[in-house]
Amino acid sequence: MHRTACLLFSCPDKAGIIAHIVSFFTLRGLSISRFEEYTDAGRFFSRLEWQIDDEEASPAEFTEAFQTVSKGLNAEFRFHFFSQKQKLGLFVSHEPHALIEVLNKHEAGDYPNTEISFVIGNRESVRHIVERHEIPFHFVKTWKDPAKHEPQQLEIIQQYQPDLIGLARYMKVVTEHFIDSTHCPIVNIHHSFLPSFVGAKPYEMAYERGVKLMGATSHYVTPELDQGPIIEQGVIRVQPGQSIDEMKKVGRDIEKQVFATALSKALHHKTITYSNRTIVFD
Amino acid sequence: MHRTACLLFSCPDKAGIIAHIVSFFTLRGLSISRFEEYTDAGRFFSRLEWQIDDEEASPAEFTEAFQTVSKGLNAEFRFHFFSQKQKLGLFVSHEPHALIEVLNKHEAGDYPNTEISFVIGNRESVRHIVERHEIPFHFVKTWKDPAKHEPQQLEIIQQYQPDLIGLARYMKVVTEHFIDSTHCPIVNIHHSFLPSFVGAKPYEMAYERGVKLMGATSHYVTPELDQGPIIEQGVIRVQPGQSIDEMKKVGRDIEKQVFATALSKALHHKTITYSNRTIVFD
Amino acid sequence: MHRTACLLFSCPDKAGIIAHIVSFFTLRGLSISRFEEYTDAGRFFSRLEWQIDDEEASPAEFTEAFQTVSKGLNAEFRFHFFSQKQKLGLFVSHEPHALIEVLNKHEAGDYPNTEISFVIGNRESVRHIVERHEIPFHFVKTWKDPAKHEPQQLEIIQQYQPDLIGLARYMKVVTEHFIDSTHCPIVNIHHSFLPSFVGAKPYEMAYERGVKLMGATSHYVTPELDQGPIIEQGVIRVQPGQSIDEMKKVGRDIEKQVFATALSKALHHKTITYSNRTIVFD
Amino acid sequence: MHRTACLLFSCPDKAGIIAHIVSFFTLRGLSISRFEEYTDAGRFFSRLEWQIDDEEASPAEFTEAFQTVSKGLNAEFRFHFFSQKQKLGLFVSHEPHALIEVLNKHEAGDYPNTEISFVIGNRESVRHIVERHEIPFHFVKTWKDPAKHEPQQLEIIQQYQPDLIGLARYMKVVTEHFIDSTHCPIVNIHHSFLPSFVGAKPYEMAYERGVKLMGATSHYVTPELDQGPIIEQGVIRVQPGQSIDEMKKVGRDIEKQVFATALSKALHHKTITYSNRTIVFD
Repeated sequence: MHRTACLLFSCPDKAGIIAHIVSFFTLRGLSISRFEEYTDAGRFFSRLEWQIDDEEASPAEFTEAFQTVSKGLNAEFRFHFFSQKQKLGLFVSHEPHALIEVLNKHEAGDYPNTEISFVIGNRESVRHIVERHEIPFHFVKTWKDPAKHEPQQLEIIQQYQPDLIGLARYMKVVTEHFIDSTHCPIVNIHHSFLPSFVGAKPYEMAYERGVKLMGATSHYVTPELDQGPIIEQGVIRVQPGQSIDEMKKVGRDIEKQVFATALSKALHHKTITYSNRTIVFD
Repeated sequence: MHRTACLLFSCPDKAGIIAHIVSFFTLRGLSISRFEEYTDAGRFFSRLEWQIDDEEASPAEFTEAFQTVSKGLNAEFRFHFFSQKQKLGLFVSHEPHALIEVLNKHEAGDYPNTEISFVIGNRESVRHIVERHEIPFHFVKTWKDPAKHEPQQLEIIQQYQPDLIGLARYMKVVTEHFIDSTHCPIVNIHHSFLPSFVGAKPYEMAYERGVKLMGATSHYVTPELDQGPIIEQGVIRVQPGQSIDEMKKVGRDIEKQVFATALSKALHHKTITYSNRTIVFD
Repeated sequence: MHRTACLLFSCPDKAGIIAHIVSFFTLRGLSISRFEEYTDAGRFFSRLEWQIDDEEASPAEFTEAFQTVSKGLNAEFRFHFFSQKQKLGLFVSHEPHALIEVLNKHEAGDYPNTEISFVIGNRESVRHIVERHEIPFHFVKTWKDPAKHEPQQLEIIQQYQPDLIGLARYMKVVTEHFIDSTHCPIVNIHHSFLPSFVGAKPYEMAYERGVKLMGATSHYVTPELDQGPIIEQGVIRVQPGQSIDEMKKVGRDIEKQVFATALSKALHHKTITYSNRTIVFD
Repeated sequence: MHRTACLLFSCPDKAGIIAHIVSFFTLRGLSISRFEEYTDAGRFFSRLEWQIDDEEASPAEFTEAFQTVSKGLNAEFRFHFFSQKQKLGLFVSHEPHALIEVLNKHEAGDYPNTEISFVIGNRESVRHIVERHEIPFHFVKTWKDPAKHEPQQLEIIQQYQPDLIGLARYMKVVTEHFIDSTHCPIVNIHHSFLPSFVGAKPYEMAYERGVKLMGATSHYVTPELDQGPIIEQGVIRVQPGQSIDEMKKVGRDIEKQVFATALSKALHHKTITYSNRTIVFD
């Protein structure tokens, strides 16, 4: 049986990098099936895929062996094997459209090798949407002070040990302590075209400013609110005479699409973040 | 011979407005050929077109007669006859792409009833582009302190008396005194998706923030830099590995398109601005 | 209590139409809250909205009274009151993405005044998706010869008497007899940018032709396969190296969006079809 | 002094191709600066760039040396050095917008290493547009029978020996004999979203069919009219009430953009055509 493996790699750009990486695989008798590379501001970024046998060395052994290449190049890199299921956890508040999109895309097989392990929400109204997909829903009441609810959320996370967390229109700020304690990346969907309209009420701000396109932004979560590295963005035209409520309704379509795409990129290990920017591979 | 006239109208929304406006035209034996209306945040906005004879009353006479309608509705309105050529003046710095787009669209007949009266530039390198379209080019050297060049620019404007000024990538800030002294609206093209990346170097800022779509915004100029009411916006996807210079090159296509569209809307009297927002009609 | 009513109107274009329509409402003491009109190839198309009281005359009475206006103008028109729920019936085969989108948008309140009365499918695999939304699912096995399954489908339709039918990726051709017997409009989603790639296997044809954008088209169903009046279209970029299966997967996002928009336009009485073209109002 | 070279390569997909290609460059001491590859329907497509010294072997010598790699892989390939200027010839009829876009982009430096050698037109009205860019304009009157004008056109082409010909809204069919006799690829812009609306009057056909998006397609010219491999496509929304003339005017913006992009891809050797499909590299 064959499985896919991938390498995410970046280092300061210089001559000969591609040859070094390719030789590593050639020498081990492995055939690269997908090779992407970009140079960005003097840094080289690459993602490779190849097929592995079941008996193949583990990611840890590859990581060890690859030191010979990476040291000379001052590189950062990660190996992933798409063999065991990744666990995705989702957070939601009262607006379920981004969550629903992910639940349905998952059901349609769009996130292979992924299990949606749990959903944490602060409204009971969303429970039936999650449970009809036979996914555990955990209600955790939230407060103005995150210290009052984050411990309970982290306990649930601890129990599932997810590989990725998605904030599917979860409308509470998360603390730096929370981010550090999840031990996995967190992807958020923000309902504006960042960096415009940071924080709460972005549609209201977009309306006030009279923009002609409204947008949505999915990004990795960092301690600074809505400042993390952007994975994906989308926009949709604002119609004349459109009210804030109509903008919100139309905006849900672009939010859910941007969020689902960003989660897919993160789950398939198609992103490298570097100095608050994200290189996204095809 | 027939010509087109239009009415731009806005007032607090209430029942019966459409009937009032339509009766005004019916009673004068005029047939409305195009009627658009939007309600936005409790205010009614409308634009009407109809055909006029050459002997028809002037805009001033219409304005006088329309008081009977507008007073009761607490309305703001303007009448325009598309009979005499409107005069457009353009400003440019060293990047001519937005200017070239407008010169060529004008030559192709896309701005009917419009004459491009003059171009003012602060680089001699653009002169030949303007003069090959047989349009006067005025070189005015610019300085850090606008007080040193704006009087000379205003003298030229005074000489042509334009109906509209377009800043076609003119890279100097204009003062409130300048705005007040032109006696006509000013349309700017800003090379970002406002309100993101105000001021100079927006492509550099967009690159730093790692946005996945870059944009352009055309707006009416007000004293606050890049804060005026937005007429049109557009975006284009940023490719992975794209340098700032490549973004600038690709961005020119969306800048010129957004600017040309915004000028067209302004020249055809298809915009109403209200509390720093622009209602744009088809 | 107030409700919304609308008039859809078209007639050969000539002077004075707007005044005639508006007077009809003014004389009845009704205030138009939304007025849209377009002239297309010498024909005038309009849609109006106004508020009605519960005791207001019925659509039938309006229709009768409006004869005085319509006769002189040789017009076609329809009145609708948004008071009683409209009934929507859906058909589906094995791919549920378009159906799921509509079920969820309906649940989110995006189709007000609409009840999804039933879903007819030719695969049992879709049943649980429908039933978890507490909507009746009717399995009807289909055959090469529609005469073998259409009677059973029409019997179900007869039972529910829907106001609109949506073919949510229902992969069987429907006969002229079927179309005539439903007594309501039918909206289809076709998975290509029509008129390109009519019939089965449009993604395969799109791949073969090497198009750089793939699309989806929603149209009213007429006896000629994929030739009915188009309501909405959308496209998405084809990536180099994308397989037919990947195109299908990505294409689902644009299909479901185009279909949901088209259903919304049809349900809100925002379309007029004329000589196989559809005028779609905002 | 350094220059860029590129290799365009395709062969039946199998394990080890990337390693083979990369070794060829490593063994010659050359460092690959850009590597792109796609697998499409069982065939591997790749484009590589690297820097060459002025004294470097010629493309012919590379081609000879590369046989050792290509033979075993049953590959097709081409080497290009971006050192000497490529010559571009353009054809135009009465609508100059696509031509103007290319002339201005060329003037702005968007087609480096390219010289626009000549323009052939069948209308004198376009002469001044070409000559103000100091490019030779050749008027060749055209007839229903191409045999009456193609010899004169081919004589001009023979004189300039272009590397690429662009048909910038040249509204005459070209014969197979013409295509064979130019000895260079020909890129056309067709004013519809192919394969919809082949031939003359595509906007009229698009209007009749009632499409909601109109498009433009740039493709390599083959003997079958509008059937050649597609390089780039774009679309723009059709507005309700838009006349055919308005569609034509709006459509010019998307035509010129699609054509300019396709020419850029062809001039930078970023396309491989295979079984009537074009793989386009970034």
